[in-house]
Amino acid sequence: MTTAQRTETLTGQMIIAGDHVTGTGTAVHAINPATDQRLQPAYAHGTADDVARATAAAADAFGVYRSTSSADRAAFLTAIADNLDADVDALVDRATAETGLPVARITGEVGRTSGQLRLFAGVLREGSWNGARIDPARPERTPLPRADIRQRRIPLGPVAVFGASNFPLAFSVAGGDTASALAAGCPVVVKAHDAHPGTSELVGRAITDAVASTGMPAGTFSLLYGSGRELGIALVTDPNIKAVGFTGSRSGGTALVRAAAARPEPIPVYAEMSSINPVYPLEGALRAKAADLGKAFVGSLTMGSGQFCTNPGLVIAVDGPDLDTFIAAAADAVAASNPTPMLTPNIAQSYAHGVDEFDGAATVVARGADTSEPNACRAALFSTDADTFLGSETLQQEIFGSSSLVVKCRDREQVREVTAKLEGQLTATVHADDTDHADAGALLELLELKAGRILFNGWPTGVEVGHAMVHGGPYPATSDSRTTSVGSLAIERFLRPVAYQDVPPTLLPSAIADGNPEHIWRRVDGELTRD
Amino acid sequence: MTTAQRTETLTGQMIIAGDHVTGTGTAVHAINPATDQRLQPAYAHGTADDVARATAAAADAFGVYRSTSSADRAAFLTAIADNLDADVDALVDRATAETGLPVARITGEVGRTSGQLRLFAGVLREGSWNGARIDPARPERTPLPRADIRQRRIPLGPVAVFGASNFPLAFSVAGGDTASALAAGCPVVVKAHDAHPGTSELVGRAITDAVASTGMPAGTFSLLYGSGRELGIALVTDPNIKAVGFTGSRSGGTALVRAAAARPEPIPVYAEMSSINPVYPLEGALRAKAADLGKAFVGSLTMGSGQFCTNPGLVIAVDGPDLDTFIAAAADAVAASNPTPMLTPNIAQSYAHGVDEFDGAATVVARGADTSEPNACRAALFSTDADTFLGSETLQQEIFGSSSLVVKCRDREQVREVTAKLEGQLTATVHADDTDHADAGALLELLELKAGRILFNGWPTGVEVGHAMVHGGPYPATSDSRTTSVGSLAIERFLRPVAYQDVPPTLLPSAIADGNPEHIWRRVDGELTRD
Repeated sequence: MTTAQRTETLTGQMIIAGDHVTGTGTAVHAINPATDQRLQPAYAHGTADDVARATAAAADAFGVYRSTSSADRAAFLTAIADNLDADVDALVDRATAETGLPVARITGEVGRTSGQLRLFAGVLREGSWNGARIDPARPERTPLPRADIRQRRIPLGPVAVFGASNFPLAFSVAGGDTASALAAGCPVVVKAHDAHPGTSELVGRAITDAVASTGMPAGTFSLLYGSGRELGIALVTDPNIKAVGFTGSRSGGTALVRAAAARPEPIPVYAEMSSINPVYPLEGALRAKAADLGKAFVGSLTMGSGQFCTNPGLVIAVDGPDLDTFIAAAADAVAASNPTPMLTPNIAQSYAHGVDEFDGAATVVARGADTSEPNACRAALFSTDADTFLGSETLQQEIFGSSSLVVKCRDREQVREVTAKLEGQLTATVHADDTDHADAGALLELLELKAGRILFNGWPTGVEVGHAMVHGGPYPATSDSRTTSVGSLAIERFLRPVAYQDVPPTLLPSAIADGNPEHIWRRVDGELTRD
Repeated sequence: MTTAQRTETLTGQMIIAGDHVTGTGTAVHAINPATDQRLQPAYAHGTADDVARATAAAADAFGVYRSTSSADRAAFLTAIADNLDADVDALVDRATAETGLPVARITGEVGRTSGQLRLFAGVLREGSWNGARIDPARPERTPLPRADIRQRRIPLGPVAVFGASNFPLAFSVAGGDTASALAAGCPVVVKAHDAHPGTSELVGRAITDAVASTGMPAGTFSLLYGSGRELGIALVTDPNIKAVGFTGSRSGGTALVRAAAARPEPIPVYAEMSSINPVYPLEGALRAKAADLGKAFVGSLTMGSGQFCTNPGLVIAVDGPDLDTFIAAAADAVAASNPTPMLTPNIAQSYAHGVDEFDGAATVVARGADTSEPNACRAALFSTDADTFLGSETLQQEIFGSSSLVVKCRDREQVREVTAKLEGQLTATVHADDTDHADAGALLELLELKAGRILFNGWPTGVEVGHAMVHGGPYPATSDSRTTSVGSLAIERFLRPVAYQDVPPTLLPSAIADGNPEHIWRRVDGELTRD
């Protein structure tokens, strides 16, 4: 299919194993948050029957799909990436209308999404994902000979992916969860987010076309619309589903984790949920450039209406004149900030509600300009002291949007005391100059136990997609700290090891066959080798 | 301390961070199952206070212990191994009395336990456990420069380990869970199994001595006695505990998994629980040597009174004269088998009860000789047809001990049908000759989805400790199929990745520092290198 054919008309239909299916449940429309206008067409929710059909097709496809070669799956992922890149204009048109996000952001996100798929294609070609290990037989060993034992990783089975509201492409239908699950050899059933159903339909078609053009089984991919509470829970509790990827709220993620744990056969849920991403401007850094840091901080805070999982919602620092300078510069920047629309009317209301709750509990330092634009995010900056912060449950909650709280501490020790009491975080950011060395080192040790990523002299928004990235962290940042939802390590979430003992050479999978036909790194008697 | 000092007198005391502490709860005695005699001394259970003290000490030790070098932790593990090897006589005396297992078995198990510790010492020295990844900065990249991002794995925190009844050494106080957690940099709090408290005390002292002699913080290791329902749950729900290792029953494992999931901060539980380990003698193999296979099968079934997680509790094969020959040979071997004591009176009673339940549901083919010896395991062999098996919940349960069930199938297709309906397993065993090739290949594909280890022309009892071993598998074989509890991969259960972005060179951990000071394999821009 050409881009024109693929993107010409939105139909509002789900895609179940290649078939276009009109839902029979509640119909929803996307809303342009910048104008409050309803967008056509209607997207009717699917039912439990649609879930059962999609998951049965996925289970059916699994046998063939998991046996495809790394090269064939790499070609499939590349075909999806090519389709997305080709469809960029239609994607930008629809996604900007559905999310209120600017053209440059969505254009970049399309590139990031296709880039992720290409990254995983490279991971497949490189081959270490197999986790190949060989302990050769030792027939001469006494008192007992050693058997030939080999290990490789295989995919878990069909994966349910939940599209996120805040990344209509990179964390949605063809986002990181889908890309890593497909790379692992797992068919995927996506529940699209109601905030951007049209974008989801376009992306779903791009994947479906790639399934067809590369000869993958139709059940490798399905796209459903529905509510999280109903269709989402039906999906997670379906016996054919073997793992779940989710990015969203703490309550939503927790509900899925509970549902998955209560199954007759519990399954892993990778939920990326809640993080306030503390920032630590240390004393030397503040002394050197408090005003610059305050201004730059607000740049990170207000980008994309603050709708990032890694938005800096907390600043923890030693009180004093330099911190006052930081706060004053940040206050000016917040006051001058241009309110931009949030993703949905609901999100805008939740943001306003969250800011109202903080208003009683901490001091308001600055607000963004008032505006009558619909769903606009008026940035908010609060401050408080450490004791008030530690005593308040409200102030330790995430407000999704451009709101942040400065916690003023007596001294470095109190900074660490507050830090030790924080919940798990996706990121922690330190601003330090050379004179902060000892302080930064002590803090780093503490932050390692609290966050998935620690960054120095930068800002947490902006998550590089690469091999070394960790977008994860201790609970409640994620439901499973042992992994990442961004970067090439994410493929390991959907694999499990299997050992093959004395399996006849002709029956061995190629990753662990004699002579290393796939030319991949393997661990032989514990030593890495490509021979 | 010398071996003589370490093993002279058992005191019945717990060891909390190096202190010997007498419990204040119910006192239990080990019982020699071969004689029903009580063994001295009494072991008084600990309380919630003891749990809190041990976990606080572990949390306290964690900061120092996790920062020890790989080489220092390797020396510590080696010191434990040396102590165990030195104490082998005392361990064999006490463990044989507590378990009724023969001297040769316990002697071998001491060697296996010290061998496991040495394996992990090697894993530490090799260094890949760090999971080091470096994506160097690209300041020239457009439109945005790329930051320097590095990744390594760090330990999760203090780990609770539950000793298993059936391996008083290899899956108990210094067993695989403890060895892999200590290797990862996690302090360990062990709940000893009441079936072998004296062995546990001896091993606890061996570890405690190694903690002292290698200068590790005292809280690195504690040993508690108590009931699973009380002290065990207190341990798993203690906020200082960050992961759990368990080998035991399905009900026990499930209770821990539930308790861990219900915590304010849920934590991973690695529970190795229930498996009936199907064996598939294929038609060619049966034609060639049905009688030999039947006899060898019973050798595996009755070894150690069948008290292995990998005991072959199920045989699935195509019905016919060759299977009859297999069954007849197995029946003879079972009838001739010598009843040996089970680990505890409770286990012997549960075994007898399980066999009674099977008696109504399937045909009794043979029983081991009757005996008046206390707690003896009379082996049992049953047979049934596939439809009866699939229709019976009873027959799909594990009986812990030397009991197995032959399921007679109409044809190969029915063999696969039955297999597709099995729950997850630790192992699956295929006996095949050259003429079985196609059948074996089709079965292998199915078995990969059901088991953690697939073996050909051998027997599942006997789990090699190495780099390629998987002792794991889909639920309910384990609560987490993504890993193994035996072999070097087990260390990964207790680690999580952390990313370091633009962290100043002087603050970078050595595993990801410039110049690769640890000389370990690292993934740089996605490529493995030791440069």
